[in-house]
Amino acid sequence: MAKFDLIIRGGRVATAADTFECDVAICDGRIAALGDDLGTADEIVDARGRLVLPAGIDSHVHLAQPGPPGEVMADDFESGTRSAAFGGNGTVLPFCLQRRGQGLRAALVDYHAKAAGQCYVDTAFHLIVTDPTEAVLGQELPALVADGYTSFKVFMTYEGLALSDRQMLEVMQVGRETGALVMVHAENDDAIRFLTDRLERLGRTAPRFHAASRPIPVEREATHRAISLSEIVDVRIMIVHVSNRGAMEEIRRARNRGLPVHAETCPQYLVLTEADLDGIGMVGAKAVCSPPPRDFASQEACWEGLRTGVFDVFSSDHCPFRYDDPAGKLAPRGRSSFRWVPNGIPGIATRLPILFSEGVAKGRIDLNRFVSLTSTNHAKIYGLYPRKGTIAVGCDADIAIWDPDRPTRITHDLLHDACDYTPYEGIEVSAWPASTLVRGRFVVRDNRLVGSKGHGTHVARSVAEG
Amino acid sequence: MAKFDLIIRGGRVATAADTFECDVAICDGRIAALGDDLGTADEIVDARGRLVLPAGIDSHVHLAQPGPPGEVMADDFESGTRSAAFGGNGTVLPFCLQRRGQGLRAALVDYHAKAAGQCYVDTAFHLIVTDPTEAVLGQELPALVADGYTSFKVFMTYEGLALSDRQMLEVMQVGRETGALVMVHAENDDAIRFLTDRLERLGRTAPRFHAASRPIPVEREATHRAISLSEIVDVRIMIVHVSNRGAMEEIRRARNRGLPVHAETCPQYLVLTEADLDGIGMVGAKAVCSPPPRDFASQEACWEGLRTGVFDVFSSDHCPFRYDDPAGKLAPRGRSSFRWVPNGIPGIATRLPILFSEGVAKGRIDLNRFVSLTSTNHAKIYGLYPRKGTIAVGCDADIAIWDPDRPTRITHDLLHDACDYTPYEGIEVSAWPASTLVRGRFVVRDNRLVGSKGHGTHVARSVAEG
Amino acid sequence: MAKFDLIIRGGRVATAADTFECDVAICDGRIAALGDDLGTADEIVDARGRLVLPAGIDSHVHLAQPGPPGEVMADDFESGTRSAAFGGNGTVLPFCLQRRGQGLRAALVDYHAKAAGQCYVDTAFHLIVTDPTEAVLGQELPALVADGYTSFKVFMTYEGLALSDRQMLEVMQVGRETGALVMVHAENDDAIRFLTDRLERLGRTAPRFHAASRPIPVEREATHRAISLSEIVDVRIMIVHVSNRGAMEEIRRARNRGLPVHAETCPQYLVLTEADLDGIGMVGAKAVCSPPPRDFASQEACWEGLRTGVFDVFSSDHCPFRYDDPAGKLAPRGRSSFRWVPNGIPGIATRLPILFSEGVAKGRIDLNRFVSLTSTNHAKIYGLYPRKGTIAVGCDADIAIWDPDRPTRITHDLLHDACDYTPYEGIEVSAWPASTLVRGRFVVRDNRLVGSKGHGTHVARSVAEG
Amino acid sequence: MAKFDLIIRGGRVATAADTFECDVAICDGRIAALGDDLGTADEIVDARGRLVLPAGIDSHVHLAQPGPPGEVMADDFESGTRSAAFGGNGTVLPFCLQRRGQGLRAALVDYHAKAAGQCYVDTAFHLIVTDPTEAVLGQELPALVADGYTSFKVFMTYEGLALSDRQMLEVMQVGRETGALVMVHAENDDAIRFLTDRLERLGRTAPRFHAASRPIPVEREATHRAISLSEIVDVRIMIVHVSNRGAMEEIRRARNRGLPVHAETCPQYLVLTEADLDGIGMVGAKAVCSPPPRDFASQEACWEGLRTGVFDVFSSDHCPFRYDDPAGKLAPRGRSSFRWVPNGIPGIATRLPILFSEGVAKGRIDLNRFVSLTSTNHAKIYGLYPRKGTIAVGCDADIAIWDPDRPTRITHDLLHDACDYTPYEGIEVSAWPASTLVRGRFVVRDNRLVGSKGHGTHVARSVAEG
Repeated sequence: MAKFDLIIRGGRVATAADTFECDVAICDGRIAALGDDLGTADEIVDARGRLVLPAGIDSHVHLAQPGPPGEVMADDFESGTRSAAFGGNGTVLPFCLQRRGQGLRAALVDYHAKAAGQCYVDTAFHLIVTDPTEAVLGQELPALVADGYTSFKVFMTYEGLALSDRQMLEVMQVGRETGALVMVHAENDDAIRFLTDRLERLGRTAPRFHAASRPIPVEREATHRAISLSEIVDVRIMIVHVSNRGAMEEIRRARNRGLPVHAETCPQYLVLTEADLDGIGMVGAKAVCSPPPRDFASQEACWEGLRTGVFDVFSSDHCPFRYDDPAGKLAPRGRSSFRWVPNGIPGIATRLPILFSEGVAKGRIDLNRFVSLTSTNHAKIYGLYPRKGTIAVGCDADIAIWDPDRPTRITHDLLHDACDYTPYEGIEVSAWPASTLVRGRFVVRDNRLVGSKGHGTHVARSVAEG
Repeated sequence: MAKFDLIIRGGRVATAADTFECDVAICDGRIAALGDDLGTADEIVDARGRLVLPAGIDSHVHLAQPGPPGEVMADDFESGTRSAAFGGNGTVLPFCLQRRGQGLRAALVDYHAKAAGQCYVDTAFHLIVTDPTEAVLGQELPALVADGYTSFKVFMTYEGLALSDRQMLEVMQVGRETGALVMVHAENDDAIRFLTDRLERLGRTAPRFHAASRPIPVEREATHRAISLSEIVDVRIMIVHVSNRGAMEEIRRARNRGLPVHAETCPQYLVLTEADLDGIGMVGAKAVCSPPPRDFASQEACWEGLRTGVFDVFSSDHCPFRYDDPAGKLAPRGRSSFRWVPNGIPGIATRLPILFSEGVAKGRIDLNRFVSLTSTNHAKIYGLYPRKGTIAVGCDADIAIWDPDRPTRITHDLLHDACDYTPYEGIEVSAWPASTLVRGRFVVRDNRLVGSKGHGTHVARSVAEG
Repeated sequence: MAKFDLIIRGGRVATAADTFECDVAICDGRIAALGDDLGTADEIVDARGRLVLPAGIDSHVHLAQPGPPGEVMADDFESGTRSAAFGGNGTVLPFCLQRRGQGLRAALVDYHAKAAGQCYVDTAFHLIVTDPTEAVLGQELPALVADGYTSFKVFMTYEGLALSDRQMLEVMQVGRETGALVMVHAENDDAIRFLTDRLERLGRTAPRFHAASRPIPVEREATHRAISLSEIVDVRIMIVHVSNRGAMEEIRRARNRGLPVHAETCPQYLVLTEADLDGIGMVGAKAVCSPPPRDFASQEACWEGLRTGVFDVFSSDHCPFRYDDPAGKLAPRGRSSFRWVPNGIPGIATRLPILFSEGVAKGRIDLNRFVSLTSTNHAKIYGLYPRKGTIAVGCDADIAIWDPDRPTRITHDLLHDACDYTPYEGIEVSAWPASTLVRGRFVVRDNRLVGSKGHGTHVARSVAEG
Repeated sequence: MAKFDLIIRGGRVATAADTFECDVAICDGRIAALGDDLGTADEIVDARGRLVLPAGIDSHVHLAQPGPPGEVMADDFESGTRSAAFGGNGTVLPFCLQRRGQGLRAALVDYHAKAAGQCYVDTAFHLIVTDPTEAVLGQELPALVADGYTSFKVFMTYEGLALSDRQMLEVMQVGRETGALVMVHAENDDAIRFLTDRLERLGRTAPRFHAASRPIPVEREATHRAISLSEIVDVRIMIVHVSNRGAMEEIRRARNRGLPVHAETCPQYLVLTEADLDGIGMVGAKAVCSPPPRDFASQEACWEGLRTGVFDVFSSDHCPFRYDDPAGKLAPRGRSSFRWVPNGIPGIATRLPILFSEGVAKGRIDLNRFVSLTSTNHAKIYGLYPRKGTIAVGCDADIAIWDPDRPTRITHDLLHDACDYTPYEGIEVSAWPASTLVRGRFVVRDNRLVGSKGHGTHVARSVAEG
C-alpha cells in the first residue's frame, strides 16, 4: 500500500448516490483510497464535521469571450478560474467562440493562448459554432471531436451568432456522426426582434423591458423546435439555461417519448425574477441575461425540474460584464435601449452556495442530488467521467471542503472575480465551500487563495455517455 | 305569406344541431320558411326519404393558381366550381396568391378576372401573402379586410412562398388589428430541404420518398411554432390540413391553455396512407401532397380530432394537377426527384361523400357534426354566416339533396373536374349528393349539370366570429 | 297550409347551432313552421327585439324527495315546477328515489302520485337506485327502461344511498344491456367520513367545515373510479355536478381515450365559493351542498369546461331546504355539526339567467352553446330529443322568450318556489326569461303565472343517443 | 490502519452513481476501505474482470406466509433465503401477515420463530395489516415502528386481506404520524369479483381467464385511489408491483403534482405476458400472479418507467407455490376455476440476472441505475441505509460478485428454492452473480453454498428518508 501525499480525515463524504464518513487519501493528484482510518500521509487535513464533496464542475461559463466592438467581458481565464475556485469548483467549461469567417481550429488556437498559464482550476472548452461551412462540418468538427472537444453549442438567437434551422440540422448531423453533444440556446430570434422593435417604437427602452422582449413562449417555441430538429436527426442534445415551466414541459414530454434530451437550469432562475430588471436608472441592467429571470411560479417550476430529474445539470451561465463601465452594462448605446445592454451576469462563485442553501438546506433536494447536479452529471454528460465528477478511487482529487453550517451573506468581495457587482448581493446562504482542491492540491484553503495560476490544465474529453 | 318559388318537400333536414322532417320553402334565393306543410309554390321537389343538408362549403381550394414555369393547375374556375357542385358544394374559397413583388390588389384584379362569369357555385377568396411589404401590411391588407377579404394564408414552406417567423408575426399583427383570420400551412422548410438533399444524395428520388422528406416532427414543429407566434401576438389562427396526432396534440394543448386556435383536416388524411405514394414508375405521384398522407394510426388520430372537436373544419385542399401530363405530375424534372413533383391532389367533389360514408354511415360522427364540419363551421369561422352554412330562415338557399343509401364506387368520370384521375378511384361510398342548389337554383339536379356557369358570385365576408 | 294557433313574431331565434330572425308558428302544441312572415294565427305575440329560445330543460332536480326523519324538502311538484317556469324551463327531470327494501316500481307509483295534477311544466323521472337487488337488476330496471325511464342515478356517498363498487358495476351492466344512461354522484364516502370524524374530534363543526370534509381529491378520486368502472363494463355514463379542475381533467382524459363519459356542472360552481359556507352563526348552511363550492380557480376551470365542451349539460341540482326551519337547514342536529345539515340548495329558477348573464353576456360562451348546455344536450342525452330541446319544425313548442337586456337583481321573491331564500340573493343578471311556453301554452307570461298546474305531463323517454 | 479480514481485489465496483476499479477491504463484516491497492488481508479474492456490486436487497418477498387451509407456500426462511443468496441478494424483506383477530405483536412472535436460525441472508419484516383495530392503530403500530418495523402493507383486494378505503386512511394516518411507509397492493376488489363471477357464469374458468378478471383499469383505478387517499392524509406511499402504463401514468402524474409516491415493478412484468397464462391443462397456473402479466406494450411501459425513474425499486414479489402439488398450483379447487389457483410466482433468485441481462446488457439502463433499482433505493426507502445498499466505507459488506459475461440458461435447478418450477425456465441471461457475501462472509461462493443458515439476522430499520 502506497504512502499517501495527503489524507483528508474523517469528513462526511458525499457522491451522487452515497453519503459516508471516512478518510480520503490522495496520491499523485488522484484519489488513492477511501477508508475508516487510512493511517499516515505527508499531510493530514482534519475534516471532521465538514462536508467533503466532489469539486463543482461548471459546464456553462463564458470567459474572455470576444463581443461586439467596445464590449469587454469582465473575466479572463485568471480571474474567472480564481473566482471558480473560491466557489468550490475544480473544473469549468468555457466556450471557444467561432467568429463568422473564422475556422474553428484558428479560434481554438486563440482561445488556448488566452488560457495558457492563467488557470487556477482545470478547463475544457466547448465550441460555439456560428459559421458551419462545409469545411467546418466536414473536416474541422470531426477532427476536433477526435481531439477531445466533444461538445458544440449553437445559438438560435443573437445577431452574428444565430444559426438557421438548416444550419442547426447540419451541426446536429455532425453530433450524430461523431457522438458529440450539441448544446442549444433556445430562443426565437425573429420573435425577439419583432417584440423589441415594437417596444422601442413605444419608447419602452429601459432595462426592465428586456423581459417583455423575450416572453416565455419565445423560449418554449425554440425549445420545442430544437427538440424536433434533434428528433429528425436522431441525436442527443442539451437545452441550456431553461427558465420556466413551459420550456421544461417540452423537455419532459420529449423524454417521455424516449428522446435523449438533456437540460440545464441556473441560479438566476431560482432566486431572481423579472422584478430584478427594474430599478432606478440603469440598475436593472445588472440582471439583464437571456432568457430573462421570470416570476415566482417559474422559480417553482425550476425547482420541480431539479427535484424530479428534468434538469440533469445546474450551471452558472457565468457571463460577466462590469456594471459601472462603458465597456460593460453601462455601454452608451445600452442607455438608449435594453437591446444594447450586454447580455449576461456573473455567477461562477455563487452557484454552489446558492443551490446548497436554497436546495439542500431547505429540504428541496438531498445532498446526493446536489452532487449530481453540480458535478457528477456534468462529468458524465460532457465526457469528463470517470476522471472528474465524483469521489471514488482513481478519480482526480478535485474536492471541495464545505463548512455545512456557516451562514454567509453574499457580497461581491467574497467572489474574487473581475466584475464589479454580483446580482446576488445580500443573499444569505447557509454554507460555503471554504477549500477547493484540484488534482490533490489546494487552490483555495480556508477561503484564502493558495494555488498558482498555472495549475489548471485543459482536459480532453471523451464522447459522453448516453 | 308570400308565394314561394320552390318547395323542397318532406325531406330530412339537418343543421349542425338538429335533424327534423319538413318542407323547405325558397323565395328569391333564400330560405323563406320551414314547415310541416308549406302549401304550394312555383315548383315542388319531392325529397321524402332524402337528406336535405346545407350545401358544402369548401374553405380550402386551389383553382387557377399560378405555379412555377411549365406547371399548370388542372382546374380553372369553370371546371373547379362545376366539380364542386357535383360534390354537393354551394360555396368554395379559393386562394388568391400574391406573387413576390406584386401588390395584393393587383393579384386580386387578376384573380377576379379569371373567375368572372365562370363559376357554377359561389366563391370567396382568401389571400395568400408571400411578400408582406410595408405597403401590404400597412395599407393593402387592412383595406382588403374592410372590403370583405377577411382571411390570409401564410406558408412556412415552399420556395417563393414561405415567410420567415418575423414576417408571420407581422401578418398576424394585421390579423389582430383587423380581426381577419390567419391560416397557416405548417411545415418546417429548412428541415424539408435538409432531408430532401440527403435523400437525393442517397438516390432516393422516387415519389415514395416524398413522405420521408416531411416526417411528422416536421409538421408538429411548425404547428407548435405557428401557435407560439400567434400566442405572442394574441391572435386567432387556423392550422390547415393537419395530418397526424403529433400536430393535433399541439392544437389540443393550445386550446386547453385557452388559445383561439382553429384546425382543419382533409380526406387524404382519413383514407390515404404513405403506401399510396408507392407504386410502379411514377404512379405514386398521384398522391403527392403536403403534408403527405401518413399511416393508419394517424388516420385514427384524425378521426379522434373530428369526433372530439379538435378539428373545426373538414376541407378538400383541392389542388389538382393532371397525372399524365408534362405540365402536371409527370413534369420532366419530377422524374428526377420527388422534389419537383407538383404538390397537391384533387378532391373538391369527393370530400363530402367520403366523410359521410366513412364518418356518418360508419358511426364515427353524427349527421349534425357532419354538417358543422363541412358547412356551418366554415361559414362561421370565415365570416359567411349567417348568409351561408345552414338551413334556417333568411339564409341563402344553398342546399344539397342526398340519397342517403346510394352506394357508389368513386370513379373519375363522376367528378367532372379537369383532372385526369382521382386518388380515391375505386373507393365505395354509401351516399351521394345527387342535387345541389345555390341561392335557390339547381346547379346539379339528379347528377346532371343544369346550372349555368355565371350563376356563382363572389361573396364579401365579414370578420369572423370568435 | 294549416291555420296556426299562435305565432311568435319576429323574434331572434336561437338553436344549438344557429341564430336567425323569423316567425315561429305553433299548432296543436308543436312548432308548425318557421318563416319570414307566416301570416295570421289565432294569436300573435310580438317578439321583435327579444330572444326566442328553446325552453330550458333541467335534468338535475330534486322535488318532493323523501329524506331522513324530520327533514323536509322545500319544494313539491307544484312549487318546484312553478319556479322552473318562472326561470324559463319547459321540462324538468326530478329523481324518483328508491328506498332500501322498496321496489322501484313501487317508488314510482308513489312519486307519480305526488306529481299527478301538480305540474306547471313537463317532467320525466330519473330513477335513483339504492338497493340493486336481483329483482331490481334483472326485472324492474329493464322493464322500466322499456317504459321510458331511461336513466338511473347512483350515489357513491350518503348513508343509505351509497352503492358499493360492485353494486355500481351491476347497475352499469343494466345500463349497458338496456342502453339506459347511468348518472353518478362521485365522492368517496369513506374519505368523507374519515375527515368528518376528524373534524368533529377537533371541534370543527360549523358549516364552513363542510368544505374541508370533502376536498377536491375526494371528488377527483370517485370521478376516476366511476369512469374506470364504466370502462370495465363498457357503458356510457354521466358524471353529475363537477366542481373543479381535478375531476374535470379526469373526464377530459377519459374522453381523449375514447370513453363515452358525459359531464355536468351547475351554477353553484360558477358563482359561489367555499367562502359562502362561512358567516355568523349557521348562515353558511345556506350554501351547504355536495360537492361544496370551491375557489376562484375552480370556477375558472368550470368555465373552461363549459367553453371547450367537457361539460355537455348545465343543470341546477335544485335540492331545496328552507333555511329558517327546523325541518330544513336549521335542523337541530345540524347545529351540532355540519354533518347533519341537509345537503342541497335551491336553483331551479336562477340557472338560466345566471349562465346567460355570466356566460353569454360576458362573452365566455356564445348563445348557441348556451342553448345546447341548457336545453338541447339535455334532450339528446336523456332521450327527449327531437320532441324537446330545440326550436324546429315538429318539436314541442317549449319556448322561453327573453328580454336580452333587462338587468335584474336576483331576489328570492322573483323565484316563486317554496324555499325561504336563494343563495344567489343580490346577484345582478343582465337578462331574464320573461315568458315560458310549454307545448304552445304560456305558463308564465311577462313574469306572471298564467298556466295551470295540471298542464305539465310526464314524458316517456327513449334510449338516449350515443 | 487496521489489518483487513478480506480483500476483494481489483474488481469493477459500481454504486448507484459511480463505477471504478479498486480493492474492497472488509473488516468485522463492514467495508473498511476502498483503494488502489490495499495491501494484505487474511484472505484475498481475485475479482479482476468481475463486477463487484452491492448485494441485492429484495424488498418484496413472501416466505412461510400462512394462506387458506390446504394452501402451503413453497419456501420457508431456509429455502427462501438460500435461493436469495444464489441470486446475489444479501437482504430480503418478507411480510409478516396479521390474521384477522390477531394482534400484530403476536403475529411477529410467530414469524420471528419461523425465521430464527434459518436464514442465510439478512432479513427485515414488513407488516401486513389486515385488521386495523383501535389497538393496532393506536398502540401496536406506533410501538412497532419505534422497534424498527417501519413499513406496513395494505391490500385493496383478496378476501380476508382487503381493507376498506376508511381502513386504508386510518393506516395511512399512522404512517403519517410515525414516518413509516405504507405499501399498497392496488387492485379493485369489487371489480375483480364482478368480472370473476361473470367469467365463471360463462364457463371461462381456465387459468388464462385470470388475466381477464383483472384488466388494466382494475389496477389503474386502485392506483389512483390509493394515491388520492394518501394525498388526503398527506403521507408517503409505495405502490407495489405496477404492471402497465395506465397505473404508471397515475404515479407519474402524482409525482408531477409533487406527491411523495414511490413505485415498484417486478420481473414478471418485463418478460412474461398474458400468453404465459395459457397452455394445455393447468400449465398456465404457473404464471398466475396479481396483477397478471400483460402484453408487450405494457412491458415497454415498465421499461420506460425503470429508465425514466418512475420506478424506484425493482423487486421479485417472490410468492412461491409448487406447481405439481395439491397444496400448490394444482389445488383441487383451482381446477374448477382460476379464482382458486394460489396467486403468486417464485422469483427471488432470478430477479437480478433478468434485470441485468435484459436491462444493462441490452442497453436499456446503465449499471448504476441497476444498482439503485436492485439495492440502494430499497435501502434508502425502507430505512436500511446507510447500513445496507451500497459499497462505501462503513457499510455492511453485503456484496455480489458477478461474472459479467457468463451466458446462462435459467433452469430451475440453478435456483435452490423449494419450489418445483420457475416461470422463467429457459430464458437465457448474459451474466450471473456467482458469489454473495453477507456482512463480509461468503454465503454463496462460485455458485456453491458455503454459508450457514444461521448467519442471516433480522435488521431493525429506521424511518425511511423522504
